Amino acid sequence: MTTAAAHAAPSTGNRALAHPDRSEIRLEAVLHALSDPMRLAVVREMASAQGNDSPGLSCSHFALPVTKSTSTHHFRVLRESGVIEQVYRGTAKLNGLRRADLDALFPGLLDSVLSAADRQAERLGEDEGPQTS
Amino acid sequence: MTTAAAHAAPSTGNRALAHPDRSEIRLEAVLHALSDPMRLAVVREMASAQGNDSPGLSCSHFALPVTKSTSTHHFRVLRESGVIEQVYRGTAKLNGLRRADLDALFPGLLDSVLSAADRQAERLGEDEGPQTS
Repeated sequence: MTTAAAHAAPSTGNRALAHPDRSEIRLEAVLHALSDPMRLAVVREMASAQGNDSPGLSCSHFALPVTKSTSTHHFRVLRESGVIEQVYRGTAKLNGLRRADLDALFPGLLDSVLSAADRQAERLGEDEGPQTS
Repeated sequence: MTTAAAHAAPSTGNRALAHPDRSEIRLEAVLHALSDPMRLAVVREMASAQGNDSPGLSCSHFALPVTKSTSTHHFRVLRESGVIEQVYRGTAKLNGLRRADLDALFPGLLDSVLSAADRQAERLGEDEGPQTS
């Protein structure tokens, strides 16, 4: 089993951020990460912008209506639960869903949550996701 | 729209417990309720014991390794999020999943969470659910 550090090391070098290995991802932590409206909105936006696991969206892409430290907290919860991967590119962090890992561990779960979120947004007449810049 | 109180009134009278109406149930609250290991175990046990919405299992059926007040707290979170229904029968509370409501609002979500929990328990070599009396 690779360590969490080894998992992120290839693309991020000394500034690697800690990620759980696939085998360390827990359903309860994933559900907790998705249970916050802002984090769920971020995940929905990532899912709609991204077809694979390659991190591509910077944190600043998501114009969350919160302070920078709160935003950083939300992204850290998503990363530490195994929902997203974060890698440094210069001074920016790029973010991507760990869809392959989640689908392998919990087939259908992510899609059912995303579908449920879409239905709820439609039912409540809300936007499809967070405002993006 | 019926009120939360009216929703539970027919079977529980003056001692009705507050439940969200179906239209008041929110995905984020459901995910939060399911994100606690003990609450998730309770829901798994209810799902395996029950084929419909009729509340049938008393709280004491679930021998949770916590104090009574903590147990009551967990059941309240499940009830207030709309995941379970609780009705009084004498001095006992009977519990049941609100599967019809959840399936109508979020098709496939509950089953995918239950399936994910089964897979994780199998992968980690854990019990299928909480010990029952």
